[in-house]
Parts: sequence; structure tokens; C-alpha cells
Amino acid sequence: MSSDATGIFINETHTSAAIWQYRVEKMLLEGKTQYQTYQICNIPRFGKSLFLDYNIQTSIMDEYVFHECMSQPAMILHPNPKKVLVCGGGEGATLREALKHNTVKEAVMVDIDEELVDMVKVHMPEWHQGAFEDPRTTLLHCDARGWIADHKGHGFDVILSDLPNPHEDGPGQMLFTREYFQLCAEAMSEDGVFAMQAGSANENYPECMVSCIETLESMKEVFPYVAGYFGIVSTFFQPWGFVLASKKYDPIALLNETIAERLAARGVSNRYVTPRFWQALFTLPEYLIEAQANSARILTDAEPFVWTA
Amino acid sequence: MSSDATGIFINETHTSAAIWQYRVEKMLLEGKTQYQTYQICNIPRFGKSLFLDYNIQTSIMDEYVFHECMSQPAMILHPNPKKVLVCGGGEGATLREALKHNTVKEAVMVDIDEELVDMVKVHMPEWHQGAFEDPRTTLLHCDARGWIADHKGHGFDVILSDLPNPHEDGPGQMLFTREYFQLCAEAMSEDGVFAMQAGSANENYPECMVSCIETLESMKEVFPYVAGYFGIVSTFFQPWGFVLASKKYDPIALLNETIAERLAARGVSNRYVTPRFWQALFTLPEYLIEAQANSARILTDAEPFVWTA
Amino acid sequence: MSSDATGIFINETHTSAAIWQYRVEKMLLEGKTQYQTYQICNIPRFGKSLFLDYNIQTSIMDEYVFHECMSQPAMILHPNPKKVLVCGGGEGATLREALKHNTVKEAVMVDIDEELVDMVKVHMPEWHQGAFEDPRTTLLHCDARGWIADHKGHGFDVILSDLPNPHEDGPGQMLFTREYFQLCAEAMSEDGVFAMQAGSANENYPECMVSCIETLESMKEVFPYVAGYFGIVSTFFQPWGFVLASKKYDPIALLNETIAERLAARGVSNRYVTPRFWQALFTLPEYLIEAQANSARILTDAEPFVWTA
Amino acid sequence: MSSDATGIFINETHTSAAIWQYRVEKMLLEGKTQYQTYQICNIPRFGKSLFLDYNIQTSIMDEYVFHECMSQPAMILHPNPKKVLVCGGGEGATLREALKHNTVKEAVMVDIDEELVDMVKVHMPEWHQGAFEDPRTTLLHCDARGWIADHKGHGFDVILSDLPNPHEDGPGQMLFTREYFQLCAEAMSEDGVFAMQAGSANENYPECMVSCIETLESMKEVFPYVAGYFGIVSTFFQPWGFVLASKKYDPIALLNETIAERLAARGVSNRYVTPRFWQALFTLPEYLIEAQANSARILTDAEPFVWTA
Repeated sequence: MSSDATGIFINETHTSAAIWQYRVEKMLLEGKTQYQTYQICNIPRFGKSLFLDYNIQTSIMDEYVFHECMSQPAMILHPNPKKVLVCGGGEGATLREALKHNTVKEAVMVDIDEELVDMVKVHMPEWHQGAFEDPRTTLLHCDARGWIADHKGHGFDVILSDLPNPHEDGPGQMLFTREYFQLCAEAMSEDGVFAMQAGSANENYPECMVSCIETLESMKEVFPYVAGYFGIVSTFFQPWGFVLASKKYDPIALLNETIAERLAARGVSNRYVTPRFWQALFTLPEYLIEAQANSARILTDAEPFVWTA
Repeated sequence: MSSDATGIFINETHTSAAIWQYRVEKMLLEGKTQYQTYQICNIPRFGKSLFLDYNIQTSIMDEYVFHECMSQPAMILHPNPKKVLVCGGGEGATLREALKHNTVKEAVMVDIDEELVDMVKVHMPEWHQGAFEDPRTTLLHCDARGWIADHKGHGFDVILSDLPNPHEDGPGQMLFTREYFQLCAEAMSEDGVFAMQAGSANENYPECMVSCIETLESMKEVFPYVAGYFGIVSTFFQPWGFVLASKKYDPIALLNETIAERLAARGVSNRYVTPRFWQALFTLPEYLIEAQANSARILTDAEPFVWTA
Repeated sequence: MSSDATGIFINETHTSAAIWQYRVEKMLLEGKTQYQTYQICNIPRFGKSLFLDYNIQTSIMDEYVFHECMSQPAMILHPNPKKVLVCGGGEGATLREALKHNTVKEAVMVDIDEELVDMVKVHMPEWHQGAFEDPRTTLLHCDARGWIADHKGHGFDVILSDLPNPHEDGPGQMLFTREYFQLCAEAMSEDGVFAMQAGSANENYPECMVSCIETLESMKEVFPYVAGYFGIVSTFFQPWGFVLASKKYDPIALLNETIAERLAARGVSNRYVTPRFWQALFTLPEYLIEAQANSARILTDAEPFVWTA
Repeated sequence: MSSDATGIFINETHTSAAIWQYRVEKMLLEGKTQYQTYQICNIPRFGKSLFLDYNIQTSIMDEYVFHECMSQPAMILHPNPKKVLVCGGGEGATLREALKHNTVKEAVMVDIDEELVDMVKVHMPEWHQGAFEDPRTTLLHCDARGWIADHKGHGFDVILSDLPNPHEDGPGQMLFTREYFQLCAEAMSEDGVFAMQAGSANENYPECMVSCIETLESMKEVFPYVAGYFGIVSTFFQPWGFVLASKKYDPIALLNETIAERLAARGVSNRYVTPRFWQALFTLPEYLIEAQANSARILTDAEPFVWTA
């Protein structure tokens, strides 16, 4: 019988507390790569959306929130970002955001899932907006950590780590550890800026994010400036956490005017990471500060974070 | 996070008691006709399945149960069914079952939804198995009741009414009434047999089925023999009800040997409606008999059945 | 926002094909014993219902179907059942059905979960209807198999095995094996009748039921007569399977008249297992016969059935 | 079969985009008042939680976020809040937050649902923490709007409007209009501060919140200072919007030091609305500013907001 309960849904388990049913208006594309399953579908109010392994990744409604948060703070903080590395970021939108800065001469994107990126090129042009064709782009398909380890001293000004959460049994665990962050630091220039997506910033599941902050803060000799921040990603039904770690520049000290000047000079127009919003962006609610004090730990290859329900 | 709760589902509201989530392994095709939305998808253990307006219609696992129940009792009961009418039955499988009987010379199928049948022809060959191409078949797309009203005296030996349930606001209500059954009788031969799908045979939602029995039993001068029966359609998570009404032949009196002979003579091989199973098929559990006594009513154009949750 | 999707539900995973959401109108009681969690709640159209480990067990709407099927065929088949053993059957309704037969002098019920039975005594009187207080009843709380092994030669006329399905990691696996059936046989009289609940009789999950039939049929020297049968338990959204195994009496040969006489003589009035329905009850649809031929195996302690999604 | 999908859930329809299933570990209390149904239950990670009409209202995990946001900005902004009115706020926690300020001499709470508040007094002490027994408190059960209309010139320093969303067919619509805000202004002192909960601050459902801002901003002669803000209520799976409207004091101009001094002087210790967080609290993301520009309208009794999926 027909009712509001009726229809097609993709169910995602949030934590032990909840299951979310996203309503599918129209399934546009389904497939499977060596690494993951994917669906592209239309969701009411969200529009075109991507799921990987039945976890929502992005929707056209607010992909800009996630991808500006992923790229813009680090790009803005660096006074002259020329060489940029994007780890992961298969939709091409993190790369797109970096390339907005006309200072960039070289943008390398390393995503292990070639089949997925090939699909994205054809079916998600709203996300990459031609970034893969940009002459400054080099697109590689291999393990990000291995590639970075092979590029010590390459002098990236900015590294953007847009990698999947460290799920149980998944390959992501070694990409959320102190050893990985150290390799990133070694591939960066002396004033390099690193930013990563770090998982939920929700009060009931902040452990991954605050442990990423804790781990990067434990590397003071490499990253004297570390700042957590979050974006309100309505598509995720939760605020999403990021961490910025910087060798030389303090994000909190950056003046609104400087931000506005840099954006103007580089031809960048943002919608979420605006000069006005900069300080608010980096102001974490008390519960994250408490969670870091109470439950964060330093993530290492020996004891990585394991994302569980 | 991944779990057994995760995945793509089509949710169907059974009654106020329950919502059923069917797991979609793979969405094969989605679309919309003038009359309804449809999805063809793979469901674990069920295989290829069709949903109409988000209600499951049929799966390859046990479509034979529904379609044999829909066609075979009436076809078997008639000693020489030459002219057959199928009302509805868009998948072509009710027609297929009728055409199995080599006595048939003429099979008319009237289904209002041409777009759906066109889709079925291409994408559901496992169901129709070429029935639409059979030279004995005439396929029409118009309102079944109107067509039948225009064909009084046509002399159908068997009419198979495979029509959607009489949903609120839906067009099906006028296809589950005494007046409709009367029109069918008038389009049939003097020894014609009528069979219909009549909704759930479950103890908690038998009202439609028992009212169909009650209504046909109230037409004794036309149909001296009326018998409810049901098929175990695992895909529906419930036994499904049917009613047979016969002008001359008593289904209960038919001998197993006669059934076996007819099937053999006509080249028919069944899997559900077998000689061995015939008597059990027509033996209704007490709760249906009680429900008919307690809550059935005669369905008329003025007061049709309205299927609600 | 309010909608038909809104409310309280108990979700049950049927198989990999589906999740069922039962709507809870009112939670009446929740608790936990050493062995399992339980909820008693009201469900629309079903009424008062019991869940164990979030699997629906019984509802007041049609508990009679399950419990008559569990008890009545074996009780009826035996010409003079005096000593009866119920294994499991915590709701007391299987016992209640056995005690209806005034031939019974001794009824032993062995259910391991004392806390659950204590709860049932107070909160589920509609099920036991005083059966625990019947002077013929002896209620024991221990492992059924161990108790039976200790009672070889006790001469039970009927043993009713109303035990939980053999779930993965659960204790039920050793109660669905040839060795267990052999112990039952040894505790029975020379003309004893055994009946068990055997899991789903659905086309998409018949493996447990048909393997129980296969296993009991493999014990011809002990049980020359074995017959599977099923009841339409609307509460379970599927037909439910049972198996009867008999040392001396053939259920199929029992005449309706004999059944009616026995019921009358013993003061028993049934609603599902009626004389009229007896032959239909034992007539399995072809798919179960095929499933037994194709996928059944003999269940042993070494290789028991493991119930999985 | 057991799985992560299994258990008890309360399903809430978010918008047409999603259904949320909250997992119930334990149902503690269920009931119904003249106005609404309620459940108190334990949810994993959230703890003790209240649902009204199957919409989650509050959980012990982060009720402080909502209730500090509801009370503290207005209370802090006023230099000497003596007379406070709470409209709605049945859990008593908005009242509790107001009473934390030792400047308060008189606190009136008007909640129409006496049965609910009586239940809260007994079963939700973690929320009210004795606020109903505070000698400064007067608790009334009547229609808030009517009561306010009868108390023009009463001189409340702060009015906190913690009322249910303006659901379709619900009574809340007349409590989200310009006329209602005008009545509040007339019951306030000349330097009074008004704050209200204003619905979701999510990008896909901001219409209610931005229309509340728009409406209050249209009343410049009454409220020269209007500021939207939001709290991250993880329990709601979305940021939640509030609006502050002030006759004399500008919240944005308030210095962190002043806030800290006031809190210290009044004996108030906050966890979410801290001096450090004040400016971030009032910094709305661009999407809300855009939504106000694009889709907000002035809400009136004639054309109120209607909350729909």
C-alpha cells in the first residue's frame, strides 16, 4: 500500500544509534570497481548524489561545503601555493578547488581507484568541472602513501588528504597515522600546509577527528600550527571534521583582509570558506575540545584508528 | 558504517502492521508510464523482480506460483478451452500459462498500460516467453471493463482477471464488483470459467479476498460453482488469494486422474497446480471461512472494495 | 515530520532478501533473561505479540495456528496419548494444546529458560491459559536434550519439540540432529509420535525444514512414517514448517471421521487442525519436495544445520 | 535472523529526503497526553531521550546544547534579567538555564500540556533539575499566546519561545508569526530580549529559520537588533536554528570579557554558549544568508509558516 514509507532507499548505518534511509528518486548509475561499489542517484532536496559502499559521499546540493573545507583553508593559508598534491578525492572536486588558485603550477592527484575516476570523468562533470583536463594536473592511480614515500623532498606547498575513513578491514587505516603524516611532511616544502578530512565532528562520534588533531599536535617540531575545523555538510546529517597542520603559518592569525586579498588576487570565489566565516570555521564547540582531552589518542601504524559502529 | 542494515532497499507498506524492506542487489531498469512507476531489479534469493508503484509484483523465483494459480485452475477445469480472455496481466505470464493449453485457438489480452507491456516485451522475456508473439494472441490496450462490456456474447471459455488491487483513488475498484463480474459472465460461453486474483489470503488482511468470494457466491444463478483458493507466493511474504467461478463445472468434483489426463493431452506441465495438489489448493484454512462469515460483503459499483493500510 | 513511515518498529532480518519492520503500537514489557531478550508489545492487526532476541515468536491473532500445528497432528494421530513431553515451548501454548486431550495423564515440559517462563506465567495468560497449573503438568528448567537422554524408556506417547531455530552460535543446533531425534525415539513408547517445528516453509528458505524431513526419513527403522506439513502463520509473513515422525501410525491414512471422533471423544475443539483440513495440511507444495530432493541433507551432531541470513 | 539491522527503532521522517531510524535500547516510558504522544527511551550513544509524536526532542547527551542555545544568549545579552518568561519548554531545561542567572527574581513558564509537564517532573529530573520547585518559578498551563496577550506591559526582561515547530494542522503556526512576536514585544520591558527556537539550520530545510529571521528583522522599530544563530545538536542530526531579537542591546557588539564577567557574577557556568564561542555562534554560514535572501518571507497570522515534508 502506498504511503510516505514507500519507495526506494539507500540505508546507511550511522552508528549503533541510528540507521539513515536516503530516499532515491531515480537511480542513475550503479557499478563496482576493484575497490568499491558505487551508485549515482537523485535524492529529493539533495539532488544528484554519489554513494560508495552504500555510504553517501557527496550531493550536488552541498558538495561545495565539503570540498571548499577540504581545499580552501590550506590553499588560502599558504601565501603562494604552486605545487599541490591531492590524495584521494576521486570526484575531482578537491582538485577543482585547489586549481581555482591561479598560483598553482602543478597539481598531482593520486587516487588508487582508476575505474572510479574514469566513471567520475564521464558521469560527474558537475564535480570535477574539467579539473582532470587542466594542463596543470597530473592524475595517478596508485597507493597514495607509497607514492608520497617515494617523493620525499618534492616540495609540495599544499597536501590535501581526502581519503576514505579508516574502516575496519579497510585500507584507510594506514592513511590516518602519525607515520603517514610524517611522510606527507617530508614531501612538503618548508612552509607547506597539510589538510585532511578527519571524520564526523558530531558529539556522539568525534573520536576519529579528535585523535587526528591529537596526533598532528604531537608533531610540534614538524607542524607547529594545528587547527581542527568543521563544515556543516547537510548531506551527511552531521558536521564534518577536518584538520589543518602547518609548518610555518598560523591559520588563526590570518586576517580577514589578507584572506580577501588572496582570494581576489588568485581569482577565487568561495561560498563556504569566506573571509567573514574564517574565524568561526576554526572555532570548535567545547565538546570537541573536551573529547580531545578525554578520548583522543595518538594514531600510529601499530595502533591506528578503526572506524566502527 | 557497513552492516547488514546497509544497502539499497525498496520499502513497501504491508498494512498498518508492517513495512517490508526488499534488498536491491542491482537496479536493472526504472521508468514511468502514464499509469505507474516501475522498477526491475535483482533481489537476493528472489532474483529478477518487478515493482509497480513500489509494490512488488513478481519475482523470477516464484512467479510460476502466482501465474499458474492465476491461469491453470480455470484452464484445467474447462474441458476444452478454446477462447480465452486475459484482463490485465501485463507481464505476459498469465497469457503464457493459458497458451500452454493446446486447445486454445484465440487468446485476447487487454491491458491498459501499453508502455508497460512494451517494456515487458523487451526486458522481461523470462515472464512472457514469447506469448505476445504467439499467433493465437491478440493484444489490446484499453480499459478491460469497457472492452468486456462491448463483447457480450463473445463466448470466452475462460476469463482470467489479473488486475491490480482496488487501491484507494485507483482505477481498480470497478474491476472488483458484482457488476464487473456480471459483464464477464455475459462475455463468456455457457460453460465458461472465470478466475481472478483477489488479494491477500493472510489472516490479518483477508477482507478483499473473502468479499470477492462472497460477491461471486451471491451470483448463484450465473455462477453455481465458486471456490476460493490460494498460492504460497514467498515473494509476497503472504499466501495470495484467488477465486474461481464456474457456470457449469464443479472444481471440487474434478478427479486427479481427469486433471492429469487433461494436462497430458494438452501438453501442459505444471509445477504448482499439479493433480496431486488440486484438492489441497481449494482447501481454505478455517480463518478464511470465518472471515467470510464475519466480515465479507457484496462488492458493488456503488460500494466497491477500497484497499487501505 | 509525521507520516506513515513514522512510529516505533521492531526490525527483523528475514534473509538477505528483506528486513521486516513490525509497527509497535504500545510496548508492554521488556526484559532480558540469561538466555535471551524479550519484548511484549501490541502490533496493529496482530495484537499482543512476543519477540525473543528481536524475532517475532507469536501474536495473539494467530498463535493458535502455530500451536495447533505444533501439538495437534501428533496428539490426534496417537490413539491414546497418555504421556506427553514438550521440549521448549516457553509460552505454554504447546502444552495447553496437548492438555486439551483428556487422555493425557502426564505432561512434562522442559524449557531451559526459567526466567522467561516465569514472565510468561504472569504476562501471557492468553497463551498458557492455566496450563502450568494443570495437575497433570510437570515443569522443568534444564537442557531438553540432556533430560531426554536421562529418560530412555520413559515411554512418552508423544514428544513435541518446540525449540528455537538452530541459529549460528546458538544452542539450538544440537536439537535439530539425527542423534537428538534418536534420543527422543528412545524416550518414547513403541507407538510414539514425535513432532517438531522445523523452520520456514517458504520457497526461498526451505533448507532447514526439508533437511529435518530428510533426516527423520533416514531413520526408517525407528520412524517408518514421516510427514512434513505447514501452517500459515500470518504473523511470521511466511508459512511455517513442521515434521511429524511416527513409530506405528501413518498420518496420511487417518480418516477424517476418525479424527473427528477422537477430537469429540477427547473434548478437543480445534480451529486450524480440523478434520476437513487434515489432508491439505500434509500436502506440501512441489517446491518443498523439489527442495528436499535438491538441497536437503541429513543433519548430525557433527554437521548440524546452521541458520544464517 | 540477527544482524545490525535488527532491533527496536523509532522512525522519524526528516524530509522527503530521508527517514531516520533511532535505535531504542530500552523503552522506559510511553504515554499520551491530550496534545501528544511521548516515549522516553535509551538510545545508544545518546542515552535517555524523549520523543513527542515520534519526533526526537532531546537526549541527555546533548540537551545542554539546545537548552543553552535556547536560553543563554538572551540571558547573557540582557545586563540584568530579573523577569523571565518561558513559552513552552516542557522539559523544564530552558527554565533551568534561565534560573541559573542569579539576577532572576521571577520566572514564569507557560506550557499548555500539563500532563506532559507532570510526567517530566517525575521522569526527567536530569532535565529540569528542580527548576519547577524553584521559589522564583510560576508554572502555568494555558495557551502561551493568549497569556502573553493578557500581559501587555508586564515588563519581562527576557522571553524565551521554546515552542513546537509550526506543523501542518498543528497549533504551533500562530506562534511563529509577526503578530505573536509583537505581543511578546509588548509584554517585555523597554530593553527586553526575545529568543526563539526556529527550526532546522540545515541547508536543505532552512525555510522556517530564515523566515523567522526575516520576520523579526521586518520589525526594526521594535527590535533594532536581530541575529540568527545555531547550535550543533547531534541528537537532531542537524544544526538547529534560533533567533534572538533585542530592543536595545546588540549581541554582536558584546565583548567576550563582558560575557565572562556576567557569567561569573551571576554564577553561571556554560558548556556550549561560552565567551570564546560567542562570535562563532552568531556567524551563520553563507547558505543561510542566501536562503534568507532567496526564500524567506514575512510570517503572519494570515500566512503562517507550515512545516511540511
